[in-house]
Formats: sequence, structure tokens, C-alpha cells
Amino acid sequence: MRVYDIIQKKRDNASLTSAEIDYIISGFTRGDIPDYQMSALLMAIYFNGMDARELTELTEAMTRSGDTVDLSAFGDQTVDKHSTGGVGDKTTLIVAPIVATLGGVVAKMSGRGLGHTGGTVDKLEAIPGYRTTMDRAAFLAQVQHHGVAVIGQSGHIAPADKKIYALRDVTATVESIPLIASSIMSKKLAAGAKNIVLDVKAGSGAFMKSVDDARRLAETMVGIGRGAGRRMTAVVTNMDVPLGRAVGNALEVLEAAEVLSRRSSDGLLYQICRELSARMLCLCHGWTYARSCDAVDTCVAEGAALNKFRDWIVGQGGDAGFIDDPSRLGAAAFQVPFAYAGGTGYIAHMDAETIGKAASALGAGREKTGDTIDPLAGIVLQKSTGDFVKNGDTIAVMHTSDERRINDALSYLSHENALTFSTDKPEPQPLIYDVVT
Amino acid sequence: MRVYDIIQKKRDNASLTSAEIDYIISGFTRGDIPDYQMSALLMAIYFNGMDARELTELTEAMTRSGDTVDLSAFGDQTVDKHSTGGVGDKTTLIVAPIVATLGGVVAKMSGRGLGHTGGTVDKLEAIPGYRTTMDRAAFLAQVQHHGVAVIGQSGHIAPADKKIYALRDVTATVESIPLIASSIMSKKLAAGAKNIVLDVKAGSGAFMKSVDDARRLAETMVGIGRGAGRRMTAVVTNMDVPLGRAVGNALEVLEAAEVLSRRSSDGLLYQICRELSARMLCLCHGWTYARSCDAVDTCVAEGAALNKFRDWIVGQGGDAGFIDDPSRLGAAAFQVPFAYAGGTGYIAHMDAETIGKAASALGAGREKTGDTIDPLAGIVLQKSTGDFVKNGDTIAVMHTSDERRINDALSYLSHENALTFSTDKPEPQPLIYDVVT
Repeated sequence: MRVYDIIQKKRDNASLTSAEIDYIISGFTRGDIPDYQMSALLMAIYFNGMDARELTELTEAMTRSGDTVDLSAFGDQTVDKHSTGGVGDKTTLIVAPIVATLGGVVAKMSGRGLGHTGGTVDKLEAIPGYRTTMDRAAFLAQVQHHGVAVIGQSGHIAPADKKIYALRDVTATVESIPLIASSIMSKKLAAGAKNIVLDVKAGSGAFMKSVDDARRLAETMVGIGRGAGRRMTAVVTNMDVPLGRAVGNALEVLEAAEVLSRRSSDGLLYQICRELSARMLCLCHGWTYARSCDAVDTCVAEGAALNKFRDWIVGQGGDAGFIDDPSRLGAAAFQVPFAYAGGTGYIAHMDAETIGKAASALGAGREKTGDTIDPLAGIVLQKSTGDFVKNGDTIAVMHTSDERRINDALSYLSHENALTFSTDKPEPQPLIYDVVT
Repeated sequence: MRVYDIIQKKRDNASLTSAEIDYIISGFTRGDIPDYQMSALLMAIYFNGMDARELTELTEAMTRSGDTVDLSAFGDQTVDKHSTGGVGDKTTLIVAPIVATLGGVVAKMSGRGLGHTGGTVDKLEAIPGYRTTMDRAAFLAQVQHHGVAVIGQSGHIAPADKKIYALRDVTATVESIPLIASSIMSKKLAAGAKNIVLDVKAGSGAFMKSVDDARRLAETMVGIGRGAGRRMTAVVTNMDVPLGRAVGNALEVLEAAEVLSRRSSDGLLYQICRELSARMLCLCHGWTYARSCDAVDTCVAEGAALNKFRDWIVGQGGDAGFIDDPSRLGAAAFQVPFAYAGGTGYIAHMDAETIGKAASALGAGREKTGDTIDPLAGIVLQKSTGDFVKNGDTIAVMHTSDERRINDALSYLSHENALTFSTDKPEPQPLIYDVVT
């Protein structure tokens, strides 16, 4: 087998065989195939794509390149959720305890954030004592006892993906739906759940700016997962505006507790969490969608989900006191309101990406791997899209431990793209664009 | 300027600026741009191509990466000819003295052959004493005295092309018309002639198998040359069958002498040489095509071209005695006829590529750089396409200094693709498909 022939074949839009895909992925991971051949192949895949079988085999080969988690002892109820990343996305914190309350087994590995958002692991680390690193036995014991565990992703999950991504990142082959899909799914397959629900974001705060691209990515990932024997659903959701009111790690943990305590003022955040939870339950129990939604509403209304949230955090060593007393998470030294100064009008749009950048500027995100996050930093929106505002109304409050960061954040929030206003009340945007089942 | 942005731009089918092209070529030649980024860019060019301006600028940047020959002292009559390579192509040996006789200035650097054909330099080295390496002063003096000099290409011509070609060769980006065109033209521009005639071959013995591809390559190269201020013509010619009767280095030198002496039995070879010579004269003198053809015919008929052939060879140190006494070039120790054994019929097709491989198997070509060539080895066809043959007729004679090579050559010639026969006389194929002026 020759790499040249494989590149040529993909260049000429033919399908690669299982043996060819395995040869490429194992050879590249070992370092036997040079970067310059791999980058040529990646560019050919950028142009010609891969069919469903190739993509599943590519993804499985990437999964096999590293460690995998065996969750078979938990039967067919293991269920994972993945979001393609948005601004203010704390859904895992809400969905995981809901689903665990209702008998789903949530044994989850999450990533850290890069760019303008903290990842789920960054959010959980805002909880004093919470352990995001556990050995395999402790992780499985937590799953066994509580039905839910969330830890950071180990460095030995899908090393082929890590190496391929690093090459894509310098050769302009990142923006390829087949390559994005196989990258995400290689890690999801390694994490071992039988059932996987994907939350694919579309909009200004998401990697996929258009709904069509997000739908294509969703369909591609569902195809890969099914090909690999998993039960799959993907939900395409709106990420033009931030998800909920809080953007920032501790601030989002508190908002998650509010949703589970039915104290949240943001109904949209609960709607998305309800949708994702219900889809997870449909998959892992075979329930109808209606039954799943009812079960979610009931377990939140009765407080069972909140109790599970508490047990989960305590089980992983965290101090759950913030659930009853938010001050236990601490508060940023500087909390500065951002006021509206443009006459009267409706908020037509709050740009998720710009607000995410403002939160990151306050210390909530990382610019590069290894940067330290300020867990208390971030933004809490006081107004939502469609609200009527007049001069002097506070739109948001900026939180930071470093006063010098306020100006940077202000320059994002004051930018003409951050917030737009209209004299007429804007039409509400759909929250959920599509469901790929 | 970032390589990433340049790759992305070409990936998205935008035109690169002159500065971007220069940055890539100079950076890659110096070793500042890694192979993995260059191969991704080359694959993007494979898919999206380059427009005329980009291609001229790419080619000129490759030319500037190394030495260039300054022929300006010879005015506007300097004229070069390039063939994309075929089987039995000895046209340079015939065309160069014709054009020099008629006032064109032919200061030419030629390549060595790889694969199934010897290059012009390999052919000239079959002439005892002929020097294919000369310093610049001696080369220019030969041009000054005789109007014609042909030497081997120096290693410092277009090093960017050499490095890019090596990368294309392992990343499946060879078969790209823009990249082929810029590779060829970078060396032609460096060789310094004001006028350039390209002989672009189409057919089984050529790199371009289809006439359409050959025409596109011809048009692309003409565009590049014109953009760089050269006067250009390209002739698209038939390379389904070998060019002339001889395939092999000394054998082809003898056939060239026969054509110039009007002793050749192959009219087609003279026709192509007449066409190329006339096109060169049209360019360098501004003559009409008819006047140019007449001048070519006359100078061959009167023996002036043959005299120029002799002066040229003697000027470069060669023994021109073979012109009057072919035995002065030597003869292969083994000359074995290949006879037809398939009943009676017309030769429908003689496959150029297969015959080239048979000649190479006899010792006339190289499999890899550095292989030694047997100058006396090769094949002389006794029959042509369209000839009627019967059992036992000799189709070709195999020449070699190594008897053990005969069987390899026979296996090529006996292969069903090498020669095909028909009961009806085949329609003659066009010799010249198109002229791009």
C-alpha cells in the first residue's frame, strides 16, 4: 500500500477502503507517514469529502488510536451529550443530573474551553473541591453510585485526532464538515456511551454560522455514530444569542443551579435543556418524546433533579453549599454595570460571539492553551432580545477580579455589532431549528 | 503575511497577489515554509487552479529562484523550442540547425530523459566528443559563431521548480495543468530566448493522453510566456505512435542526419520538424507561415541545414563523421529482428508508450536518475501504421549491447497493446492537432 496512491484516489474522488483508512491513521499516528503527505490528503478530503462508510471507518480508526472507556457494564442506558460549543452553554450541568435522575447513565468526559468560552470542565472547577481528574476506578464508582460523573478528557483519548487537528490548524483544512465530524465523533466513540445526543449550534456564537452547515454537520455526525453502532440524535439549536443570562464559569454554575431550582428567569435555557434531556431519554429508554418531556418537567418540579445535582457534586468532592447560598462560590471584586445610552427601543439582537469575547476579556476564557481562567469573571445579562430599554437601563453587569480588564470588555460591548436596537419589537427567533433522529 | 491565509485564500478559489506568490516561492525555496503547508497549497491549486496573471507571476517567481541566461546581446532573434516529451522525439536535432541556417539564434539547454525516453542531451552524448557541458563564455561563443548551441541544463536553473516538483511527486499533485505549465515554463523563461515554440504531445506516448488536455496545457503555457513578455506559439502534435522509425539515442541521431540529408523514409517526422521550424521562424523573424515553410524546405533541399548540423556538432567538439559514415557512431552487438506472426493484415496502431518501454528495456532509457544509458541500444521500426504485413515480416529490429535484455523487450513488443492489426486499411491519424498562436 502506498500513501501516494491513497492521496491520488481521494483526489480523484474515489472512496478509500477500510484497509487504506486504517493504514493512513495508524501510520500517521506512529509518525511513519510524513506531515506533507497527510496535509495533501486532508486538503483532498476538504475538496472531495468522504462517504458515510469512509467517515465511520475514519472515525473508528481515530478512536482506536488511543484509550477507550468500556461502559458495557452499565448496559444500554449509558448516554452522552455533546455540544459543538456556544457562549454561555451550561446545559451539561443541567442535563446530566436530570437524565441521571430518570435512569440514564451519564459517564462523561468534557473538554476545556479555548477562545471565547470556558468548557464544562472549567465551569465545574469553579466549584470548590470538585475533582475533574479521577482514576478509572473512582470514575466508574461515581457512575455506579450516582448515575452521573463528569471529568476532564484524558490526554490519551484519540491521539490521532489531536495530531490531525494540529496539522489542519496550520494548513487551512479546519473548516471541513467531514473532518470536523470525525474529530468530534472520534472522542465521543472513545467515551463509550451507547446513546449520544448532539447539540449542534448555529449562529454568530457558534463555529457553524449557518443553519444549513449546522444541519449538515449534525447529519454527518449522526451517520458516523450510527455506523459505529451507537444510537444517535442531533438537535440543531440557535446560538445567535448567548444561552441563558450568565457567561462565565462560576456565574454559569449558579445559573444552572437556578434552573434546577426553578429560580431561573430565562425560560429559553430550560427549554433547550428539556429538549436535550428528553432526546437522551428517548434514546436510552426507548420512551416517546412526550413521555420523556413529561418526565423531565416532573423531576425538575419535584426537586429530584436538584438533589441529583447536589449528590453528583458532592460525590466528586465538591462543596455543593452554593446551591442554597450562592455566595459560597465567591463573587468577583469588581461588578460594573453596562448601561444603555441610545434613547428608547427594543433590543433587536445581542451578538453571542461579541458578548463571549467581552466575557473572555474579563478573564472568563483563554486565549491560548495554558492560560489561567478567572472563575468568578464574566457577564450577567439583565436584559434579553426583545426587551424594551431606555437610556440608563443596565443591560449587563461585568464581573472581574482585575479592574484593568473592564475597558477591554467595554470596548466589545460598546461595539456596534454587540447589541442592535429597533423601534419595533423584533420577531422571536426559533430556539430549535431542527432535530436529526 | 501568513502562509495559512494564503492556503485558505487559494482553497476558497480566490486569486493570490503577486506579493503572496513571491512570499510562497521565495520562502519555500529558502526552506522557511514547511513542506506540509506547501503540499496543502499545491493540492488547493490542483483543485482550484490559477488564473493567467497568477500563473505568470508564479512562473516568474520560480524562474527568479535560480540562475537565468541573458541572451539579450543576440537581439530579438533568439528562439527556443520545447517538447513535452515523446517516444523517438529527435526533433531538436533537426529543427535547431534548420532554424539557425535561416537566421534564428538557437541557444538551448536540454534535459536528460527519465523513464522510457532518452532526452536530447542523452542523444547528443551518443556522438563521440560532443560536449553537453560548457561554461557560459564557451556556450555564448558557440552561439555567436554558429547560431546554434545545445547543452545540458545546469543545476541552478529554477531550483524552486526542482523542490516543488519533488514534493508534487510524493503528494499526488503532478497531474495539474497549471503546475505542469509553470514547471516547464519556469525553465524556459530562465533559458532566456525571446521566442518560444512548444511542441505539446498528445497520445499514448505522451504525458497528456488526450488532445483536450494537451491543448489546455498548450494554451496555459502560451499564456504564461506571453505574460512574461515572450513571443509564443504552441503546436499540439500526435504522440500515439513513435516519432519516426528510430527509438534509441545513437539510432535517433542517425535518423536526424537522414532527415537533414533527405534520406529518411519517414515523411511524418520531417513534417513535424518543418512545422516547428516554420513556427519558430514566424516568431523570430515575423515571417508569414508560408514563407517560413518555403524557407525550411529550401534550406534542407539545398543541404544548408545539413552543413549547419555538421558545423554545430564540430563546434561543440563532436565527431560529425557519422553524417557520411553512420558506422562511425558504432553499432549494437546484438540486432535481433521482431517478426509478425499473426496472419495477414494492416497495422492499425503501434503503441508509442509500449515501444518506448521496449527500447528502454534494451538499454536506451533510464529507470531512475543516475542509471547508465546504452547509447547504441534501441528499436528501429521497419513498418509503419497502415502498412500491410504478413506472417514472418520483420516489424522492428531490436538493438542492444546486452543480449540478456532481448527477452524483456520482446515481452513488451509481444504484448497485445504494443501492436494492433486490422483487416481494413486504417484511416490515417492527423499529425498536428492544433496550433496555439
